Amino acid sequence: MAKQLSGAGLRGQVAGKTALSTVGKEGSGLTYRGYDVKDLAANCEFEEVAYLVLKGNLPNQAELDAYKAKLKSMRALPQPLKEVLERIPASAHPMDVMRTGCSMLGNLETENDFSEQQDATDRMLAAFPGMINYWYNFSHNNERIEVETGAESLAEQFLWTLHGKKPSELHTKVMHASLILYAEHEFNASTFTARVCASTLSDIHSCITGAIGSLRGPLHGGANEAAMELIEGMNDPEDAEQKLMGMLERKEKIMGFGHAIYSESDPRNAVIKGWSEKLAAENGNSSLYDISVRCEAVMWREKKLFCNADFFHASAYNYMGIPTKLFTPIFVCSRLTGWAAHVMEQRADNRIIRPSAEYVGEDFRTVTPISAR
Amino acid sequence: MAKQLSGAGLRGQVAGKTALSTVGKEGSGLTYRGYDVKDLAANCEFEEVAYLVLKGNLPNQAELDAYKAKLKSMRALPQPLKEVLERIPASAHPMDVMRTGCSMLGNLETENDFSEQQDATDRMLAAFPGMINYWYNFSHNNERIEVETGAESLAEQFLWTLHGKKPSELHTKVMHASLILYAEHEFNASTFTARVCASTLSDIHSCITGAIGSLRGPLHGGANEAAMELIEGMNDPEDAEQKLMGMLERKEKIMGFGHAIYSESDPRNAVIKGWSEKLAAENGNSSLYDISVRCEAVMWREKKLFCNADFFHASAYNYMGIPTKLFTPIFVCSRLTGWAAHVMEQRADNRIIRPSAEYVGEDFRTVTPISAR
Repeated sequence: MAKQLSGAGLRGQVAGKTALSTVGKEGSGLTYRGYDVKDLAANCEFEEVAYLVLKGNLPNQAELDAYKAKLKSMRALPQPLKEVLERIPASAHPMDVMRTGCSMLGNLETENDFSEQQDATDRMLAAFPGMINYWYNFSHNNERIEVETGAESLAEQFLWTLHGKKPSELHTKVMHASLILYAEHEFNASTFTARVCASTLSDIHSCITGAIGSLRGPLHGGANEAAMELIEGMNDPEDAEQKLMGMLERKEKIMGFGHAIYSESDPRNAVIKGWSEKLAAENGNSSLYDISVRCEAVMWREKKLFCNADFFHASAYNYMGIPTKLFTPIFVCSRLTGWAAHVMEQRADNRIIRPSAEYVGEDFRTVTPISAR
Repeated sequence: MAKQLSGAGLRGQVAGKTALSTVGKEGSGLTYRGYDVKDLAANCEFEEVAYLVLKGNLPNQAELDAYKAKLKSMRALPQPLKEVLERIPASAHPMDVMRTGCSMLGNLETENDFSEQQDATDRMLAAFPGMINYWYNFSHNNERIEVETGAESLAEQFLWTLHGKKPSELHTKVMHASLILYAEHEFNASTFTARVCASTLSDIHSCITGAIGSLRGPLHGGANEAAMELIEGMNDPEDAEQKLMGMLERKEKIMGFGHAIYSESDPRNAVIKGWSEKLAAENGNSSLYDISVRCEAVMWREKKLFCNADFFHASAYNYMGIPTKLFTPIFVCSRLTGWAAHVMEQRADNRIIRPSAEYVGEDFRTVTPISAR
């Protein structure tokens, strides 16, 4: 007899074990492999954190140098992948482009054996920033970009392949922090998708392709884009306050606030908010930041809702000239580390994930001949 | 506090409600919308069952005619999709081709709104047989096939686009039965993947792409291919007996027998076994069927293990000249109905599927400067 669950969506149900992260301990914590995400964001490059999440410990300088050199060497896109990207229209959803590009890579460089899982992951980490920006620049600017840039990090690589030039030191730092904040988050829906797929012992490109598809959903990955759409419609803090109050009165959904797991605050918010403020100062126009700060105050005052990781990402990305439609693909470039680490963890102690369902359908019946229906 | 589950892989845990099917009631039953799968396989075409699974009731003649005409009108592949398929090498895993083709279709014909879910599903049902066979014939035979054939059904369409000619009546009938047997199976791993993805309110192509990736796993969709590899290495029933006994003695994994949910028998086996026998008779060479029958007897005698749906599918598909590597893609063409129906069901009463994990990792620690690591 199947056991009844306490709530819909498996909420609060343990679906497996993980050594990768804790979410919401004491209401607000986020740790990767035991380290507080704020500590990592303040003191590490993204590649150190990717190494940590994937391999279990922070690298020393020699290990980090070797890892970054390996990733740098794996950026070239196979010609057939470029040709596929060139056939995806500018109107496509960029997450569909990521999903298709990842899937296509799986045809060209299939993971034949689990011994290849680390290399396959590193290859995706190295290739994804160039992949999405190759499509973006080809479809929007009719330009075939060079993805083998001189960038020293994934953070730099993303901005370089997007804008066609080496980014500033500040922008590179913000991207490191942003990628660190998004790298891992326990059994969220996209990660759980990757684990369900991994539990059939499928290949890693199938797992990541599936995870991208889940992250695409507006209840999951799209919140920073929705936050951008919200704040770009506001003229100044006063206008922001007025518009938000109207939305609250009309009980409209406001994205970028609150969280399914965190109950008191999102530990990632303070980090990205700090960087958004620095970007506003550099930019000489703090309007978007000021609007965001007012939104935060209003939502807390009216609803006791805190900003989640996504809200100040909107202004931060916008200050760096990143088109709104590319926000969620950046999330992919980062979360890929967590997804892949979960795939590896699932494979290491696997049982196929196959729950049961409560049947609520028709009673038994027999087929009536079609002439009598 | 998260509630502990009874077993790994969510086994025996209710993860949601469904009106689509029951699996393993009284140990051996399988019903779609209340109808026994054997009843459906004996009395219906696949399109009737697809209609049933997707819309809730069996069609009358006018409804069936209209549905088949609709599917027939939706077979053409968009030119950019063909160009993508042409860039996938012959060495690729055909399930990677299905996954990529489905994902690419999502770029070209994006589901913009859930009101489009039935049309998007019908489009995939209509296009998938031609899609996989377009790739197969291009990559293996250097031939660009015509996918808009005169076929009256999906069963016929698959064989026609594979072999380039109208199939015999017997072969078409077997394909109808086979597609019916594989159409739906409750919360298996690929279907659950589709539901997790749907729970983020992502688009239907993301859900189906993810499901294909999960079905690709050897613990899930690949059993009929593995069964084929087993029996094609056997010369006759005596040789089969000897080889199986050796495998059992060496405790080797033997695919196509037993089932995670069914405890007494797989209701689909008798149906496909009957068709395999008829195909053997038509073929004038019953060797593969006779070998399969002996395997069934040995596994029952030695291990009390019954054939599942996959075992006699191997000989049946082989008699119809279907290459082994295309067995699992046929499964996709059929199960797409179940996946899509589950996506629709999830959307109609949704909560994001986001379980918890038991943390088994490092205790809290602080970042050491890289120079001191």
